[in-house]
Amino acid sequence: MNLTNHVFRLATRPIGMPKRSDWTYSEERVPEPKEGELLIKALYISLDPAMRGWMNEGKSYVPPVGIGEVMRALALGRVIESRHPKFAAGDFVSGTFGVQEYAVSDGKGVSKVDTRVAPLPLHLSALGMSGLTAYFGLLDVGKPKPGDTVVVSGAAGAVGSVAGQIAKIKGCRAVGIAGGPEKCRYLVHDLGFDAAIDYKSDDVKKSLREHCPRGMDVYFDNVGGDILDAALAQLARGARVVICGAISQYNNTGPIKGPANYRSLLINRARMEGFLVFDYAERYGEALREMAGWRAAGKLKSREDIVEGLETFPDTLLKLFKGENDGKLMIKVADA
Amino acid sequence: MNLTNHVFRLATRPIGMPKRSDWTYSEERVPEPKEGELLIKALYISLDPAMRGWMNEGKSYVPPVGIGEVMRALALGRVIESRHPKFAAGDFVSGTFGVQEYAVSDGKGVSKVDTRVAPLPLHLSALGMSGLTAYFGLLDVGKPKPGDTVVVSGAAGAVGSVAGQIAKIKGCRAVGIAGGPEKCRYLVHDLGFDAAIDYKSDDVKKSLREHCPRGMDVYFDNVGGDILDAALAQLARGARVVICGAISQYNNTGPIKGPANYRSLLINRARMEGFLVFDYAERYGEALREMAGWRAAGKLKSREDIVEGLETFPDTLLKLFKGENDGKLMIKVADA
Repeated sequence: MNLTNHVFRLATRPIGMPKRSDWTYSEERVPEPKEGELLIKALYISLDPAMRGWMNEGKSYVPPVGIGEVMRALALGRVIESRHPKFAAGDFVSGTFGVQEYAVSDGKGVSKVDTRVAPLPLHLSALGMSGLTAYFGLLDVGKPKPGDTVVVSGAAGAVGSVAGQIAKIKGCRAVGIAGGPEKCRYLVHDLGFDAAIDYKSDDVKKSLREHCPRGMDVYFDNVGGDILDAALAQLARGARVVICGAISQYNNTGPIKGPANYRSLLINRARMEGFLVFDYAERYGEALREMAGWRAAGKLKSREDIVEGLETFPDTLLKLFKGENDGKLMIKVADA
Repeated sequence: MNLTNHVFRLATRPIGMPKRSDWTYSEERVPEPKEGELLIKALYISLDPAMRGWMNEGKSYVPPVGIGEVMRALALGRVIESRHPKFAAGDFVSGTFGVQEYAVSDGKGVSKVDTRVAPLPLHLSALGMSGLTAYFGLLDVGKPKPGDTVVVSGAAGAVGSVAGQIAKIKGCRAVGIAGGPEKCRYLVHDLGFDAAIDYKSDDVKKSLREHCPRGMDVYFDNVGGDILDAALAQLARGARVVICGAISQYNNTGPIKGPANYRSLLINRARMEGFLVFDYAERYGEALREMAGWRAAGKLKSREDIVEGLETFPDTLLKLFKGENDGKLMIKVADA
């Protein structure tokens, strides 16, 4: 095969919001897979808030993307050539294939995707890493009990929407915080949240007091900043604050805003805890089976915001940071 | 009896550092104890950072001291008259007797103190609420394991010095953060800490990197502010951050400084948790017996900074916030 790849590589470390010139976009020859490798054609590329962190220098839970390296991204693709014993041409697979049309992989961290369970894009959203993040963050870190009040920020996003629905499945009250009336309507009317707070027009602190008169038992935070502070002011005794993300802070050019109300943890004997979904890899299968069951029973819904064309990547990514995506944001690179 | 009491009552809510005019200091007639009450003569009054919080309006773990009310304080005293079945004249007792020479109590929250176990002032420090706070905060919230690195801020203080020594007793490395060379010398040479960092002259972040090359497993925080941020930057995976206090922030006139590095909780799958010693009241006896044993074995030392004279209260309290106290700060009101 003599294939041409289109590739986004990191050119410079962005300051504030990333812009097109922070990457190069180039045509490259696709290398032939060697013994033990497979060649994947990308179909859908997942756009995630975490990508902004991967572009920064410095210690984190994974090394930063190096200057000149392919921009890191989770993706779904199809094996078009395999010299790996576990994969065959035609297999649908998910993995960290990067922002490019073709990837060669040694198979590490690559999983087969069963398209009979759900359409392909779902395997990047509710039945993919976003859903798994919500599942383990809420259940293992947040530890909700029936009757608990669970508040989720970024609630209309790929992770938050699943976290709130799992809270409902577990017998909790779910209150979502999202931006704009359409997202709030979606949470309450389509996903079954008990209430939604529009942070763009409501006084979040006051609304949380109204919707959580006995305080919140679990707060699942995707956003950080002022909303985290408002939430800390409304904890119930023994509350669990799950730190999943802090999208409001990722493009800061000044210092990160720390949660000034953190002493609420003391007053309320509460805890704030971070987690990474990768630590739960051994339980992905079990969690995906359970979530597929919920989906089949109509209890777990999702929507995907699919933008066509790899070349749109720099602009499409910004939708996340502007809160303009409707559900799980991804780029469709090619037809299956 | 016709006794005269001297009493500090809250006059106004302080802004920033409390000053003498925030209290009234008056002579009052001591009321006679009624049936079921006891009359206590104060001997030692405990000065604690938490007192600053009690002077503020607003929701906390206890109601604020009301304007015109006796300033709240833990104290040791002697029963001089009892109409309560559980107490007799001559008993040494501890309780929340306030900043005054005499207190009438209904016996709730009053405990007898056994002066055969240790001299009286110790029952306000290592074998009192300060010691209990360190004991439950470190062991129940911090959950140190042998070989763990435990870092304590405010380490030369009444709570921090006990927390660090218990860490050593449990087989951990203990690193203390304190202000000034004398306090640091005390930690290492007298109390057996493995290292001490002088936040007034050292680069705390750099020193923590040096003394905790594999990160800290437990961080016991009494101070908040920049030191909490420096500590968060140096967490080990799965670390426990115990929020005991935030003395650097109690006299802020501007907004509280939240911990900007809180996302380290995510990167390191760590947790930050608050607690209040009062929740462990049922286990005080057990803890005090264990700590008395450690003290008898020479493993748990303490020093008390005893200032004479109730009338010094407003100035003596400031020693805490200026870091000028050497060990547990208390006022001696009268001879036993």
